[in-house]
Amino acid sequence: MEMNGDQLSVYALGGLHEVGKNMYVIEYGQEIVVVDCGNKFPDETLLGIDLIIPDIHYLIENQERVKALIVTHGHEDHIGSIPFFLKKLNVPVYATRFTLGLIELKLTEHKILRETELIEIQADSVITFEEIKIEFFKVNHSIPDCLGIVFRTPEGTIVHTGDFKFDLTPVNQQHSDIHRMAEIGKEGVLLLLSESTNAERPGLTPSEQMVGHHLEKAFMDAQGKVFVSTFASNVSRVQQVVQAAILTNRKLALIGRSMVNVVGVAIERGYLAVPDEMLIDQKQINDFPPEKVAILCTGSQGEPMAALSRLSTGNFRGVDVLHGDTVILAAGPIPGNERSVTTIVDNLFALGANVIYGSGVTTGMHVSGHGYQEDLKLMLSFMRPKYFIPIHGEYRMLYKHQQLAESVGVQQGHTFILKNGDVVDIKNQEARQTRKVHAGHTYVDGMGVGDVGNLILRDRKQLSEDGMLVVVLTMSKSKKELISDPDTISRGFVYVKESEALMNEVNQRIKQSLSELREENKMEWKAIKQQIKKSVGEFLFSKTKRKPMIIPIIIEI
Amino acid sequence: MEMNGDQLSVYALGGLHEVGKNMYVIEYGQEIVVVDCGNKFPDETLLGIDLIIPDIHYLIENQERVKALIVTHGHEDHIGSIPFFLKKLNVPVYATRFTLGLIELKLTEHKILRETELIEIQADSVITFEEIKIEFFKVNHSIPDCLGIVFRTPEGTIVHTGDFKFDLTPVNQQHSDIHRMAEIGKEGVLLLLSESTNAERPGLTPSEQMVGHHLEKAFMDAQGKVFVSTFASNVSRVQQVVQAAILTNRKLALIGRSMVNVVGVAIERGYLAVPDEMLIDQKQINDFPPEKVAILCTGSQGEPMAALSRLSTGNFRGVDVLHGDTVILAAGPIPGNERSVTTIVDNLFALGANVIYGSGVTTGMHVSGHGYQEDLKLMLSFMRPKYFIPIHGEYRMLYKHQQLAESVGVQQGHTFILKNGDVVDIKNQEARQTRKVHAGHTYVDGMGVGDVGNLILRDRKQLSEDGMLVVVLTMSKSKKELISDPDTISRGFVYVKESEALMNEVNQRIKQSLSELREENKMEWKAIKQQIKKSVGEFLFSKTKRKPMIIPIIIEI
Repeated sequence: MEMNGDQLSVYALGGLHEVGKNMYVIEYGQEIVVVDCGNKFPDETLLGIDLIIPDIHYLIENQERVKALIVTHGHEDHIGSIPFFLKKLNVPVYATRFTLGLIELKLTEHKILRETELIEIQADSVITFEEIKIEFFKVNHSIPDCLGIVFRTPEGTIVHTGDFKFDLTPVNQQHSDIHRMAEIGKEGVLLLLSESTNAERPGLTPSEQMVGHHLEKAFMDAQGKVFVSTFASNVSRVQQVVQAAILTNRKLALIGRSMVNVVGVAIERGYLAVPDEMLIDQKQINDFPPEKVAILCTGSQGEPMAALSRLSTGNFRGVDVLHGDTVILAAGPIPGNERSVTTIVDNLFALGANVIYGSGVTTGMHVSGHGYQEDLKLMLSFMRPKYFIPIHGEYRMLYKHQQLAESVGVQQGHTFILKNGDVVDIKNQEARQTRKVHAGHTYVDGMGVGDVGNLILRDRKQLSEDGMLVVVLTMSKSKKELISDPDTISRGFVYVKESEALMNEVNQRIKQSLSELREENKMEWKAIKQQIKKSVGEFLFSKTKRKPMIIPIIIEI
Repeated sequence: MEMNGDQLSVYALGGLHEVGKNMYVIEYGQEIVVVDCGNKFPDETLLGIDLIIPDIHYLIENQERVKALIVTHGHEDHIGSIPFFLKKLNVPVYATRFTLGLIELKLTEHKILRETELIEIQADSVITFEEIKIEFFKVNHSIPDCLGIVFRTPEGTIVHTGDFKFDLTPVNQQHSDIHRMAEIGKEGVLLLLSESTNAERPGLTPSEQMVGHHLEKAFMDAQGKVFVSTFASNVSRVQQVVQAAILTNRKLALIGRSMVNVVGVAIERGYLAVPDEMLIDQKQINDFPPEKVAILCTGSQGEPMAALSRLSTGNFRGVDVLHGDTVILAAGPIPGNERSVTTIVDNLFALGANVIYGSGVTTGMHVSGHGYQEDLKLMLSFMRPKYFIPIHGEYRMLYKHQQLAESVGVQQGHTFILKNGDVVDIKNQEARQTRKVHAGHTYVDGMGVGDVGNLILRDRKQLSEDGMLVVVLTMSKSKKELISDPDTISRGFVYVKESEALMNEVNQRIKQSLSELREENKMEWKAIKQQIKKSVGEFLFSKTKRKPMIIPIIIEI
């Protein structure tokens, strides 16, 4: 069903009932504005998949109406799909200076930087299309230069918060503009879209400064080298590591590609202050006494190829974690990464390091960038929206956020818990959710975008659990008889060498199946293949309780 | 290297640098006593593996010396490998009444109950061998009838704590016998083996009674049916659910096989008190008003086939979670299970249930059965051991436990952080760790025990990520020439139908490889296969950035 007339429509192509892959869309009349273009990483059931990006078929079909991609901030779940998006849609991209820096790194990697129209905005920028006018407001989050967005439409005002928390003592002057938020709310908000990541957590998010105090203490206590692993894009935290290093008179080395790249962007664009002569190359680390060196490294999520993982196993060339060194994990593990992170912690302890890990107040080395329940209620209270759509989160987070909204006065029935693709249409100030646009996951696997589907994933799953057995039958075309014994080749199932008896029995089953089919006069190749799959599969399951994929191949001579 | 002379030796065949698969061994002279026989579940890298059990080759080689398997309590990580153990070693099994009940369920399933010698012990039992005398003491843990073990040997006393916490207000009289512990410590302990699961957590473990209070409140607040999911073996918690149901005048139904079995054992053996007429069959649930029914179910770890998961998707025949029902997850997720659990929570919210989830004091629906740092220090303080081996845990937990031991007086250098197989020998009261016995993982996959090794797992990994391509070459035996075009069959890679051009190019590469080999006069089958693997693999990687397994098959005619 297509939209008709000049109404206001809002929907997500990613980010609902999931964490990551954020993409929200505002339509009014002939204008479509897209907010964010993130990716997410596959869980362990999506075998072999590298990335998941939003399915943007709907936007491609309506490309003449798509006026802009506006990016709230530079995290992967908000910018990670931009290269794939731009290869399909030629649309200008609006973002702040720091966010653009990270987008440019990405476009350079994909070799499409030159043909892209990138437009820098600030918190006080205004973008004016025919019908939709766009303003911004500053929010605080765990990366610099984050914006919330205000859409002024003939139907009313929509606010999209981006990711945010309220940190009243932020690092590097990354203040939330609460005065502007109050003003927007006072003018009247028809619809609020607000992020839900921490809607399950009571209280107010602790300030980033808490981490700074703990970092300083750890640096002062440390005897040998100090390694700190964190997200490179968390420039406030990087700044606090710099301060702790200054305080304890240590040089600072950066290791890991994204640490070097992103810190480079932050320094160059003025978001990070590092004294001259403080930065040293990783090759110089061993030129200084250990108590004079700090090292910022990637890999806080346990990524096997990143610096911290390689350091923990002694496989980082030229840099060693030694007995007496301190290693600080200044980032919380993203759900699903816990095991990889704890393995690294184990290995670092085994090297004799003093490892400071674990999030929360216990170690104080990490605070979330996403608002807790009181932060979310404060945003809702500023905006006083008539309608509310909780965004960014799995169902239980959206659900809790709805409860929070009602607790601060949003009317029952005025909150929409949507799925990706569900459209809220607003006309004459009344919102209704009745229709859908196409939305979905697109899998990226190597160079392939969208070519791996459920059938291939189902095959990979079977192959991964029980392997496979290829059965080659060489048969005469004329008589439809076996010319020689069947050949069997297995991978991931059993060592055929060690299972000669089993394979002999498999051959017996095959011959038996063939003679049965011959008696029933069913010697078509398709029937033969089906019968062999069935009889060999059942036989192997009865003998091994495993279900390898059986692949019969018939060679006609 | 073999042990010589009458010395005391202690080592683990499972449970060190891991959580699960516990098996510890005490040797003195000609006597070997084994403590516990657990399994663990594979992480996502062990594709297709069902279970991991200890490698017991060393015990099999020394089977005439193995006198007993003593089991501290009935959790899977302490009893899960017993059937596999007993199929290899005919050894009497000693355990308490409740633990034996769970072991019997397991042996019945494996059809080896009859031929096993099961010996029931109590806390005051004494088992006397030639040299080793064994006593016990009661400990509190999240399952009834748990014991610590005291080994009296000519060399001195060894204490093995089993799993424990100190709960001064336990449910169902499962008290720790702190007087006996104090006595054992006063008499003198040469070596303590104590569990390390929660060595990272500061403080004292909360009492199980805390959960009872929260359950009662939730039951009183509930409008509709109340579902509680917990470990069936946590009889204290089940008892508290029973109490909350009595308080609110609800009938109780059990769903899930292990809930029915284990609660059955607990009632029959007198560990759980349930009033007559309170239990109803799951078929009767809809015969009562929803506010008169409570349901205990399996699946608190998100297991896809267990009751809670099926309830959450509306796939449990005859029982529905409806709007207004309450669902309580009264168990913490084991690391690695978080995502499956949160998916279930999402689905339950979507059904309209009031879901109470999350561990810790926030919801109060779960407390750990493993002692925190203060519990561990109390045990160390009671036992005052000369030597200490932290057991049950990954490296960082063992390391933290060593620090705790030193903080309460264990001498530096007297703690051994071991790997599975590392032996501590004690002679003349002096302990040394110099030698190893064979230890390792044995994988159970379907009916196969130990037949899946790293080669098969590596194949499964490659198949799982990029699938495979079978290339069949039909060649004349005489001329060594292709008789027809190569056949290609792929699974988990690309749809061949949609990639006709790609497969045509693959065929070109194969023909080219063959003609190159012919020119170089290298037309042996082995060389052909290698060359095809290489050239097709490289070609496909360059085109797709994927690395499917290439399986060349040559049919000679």
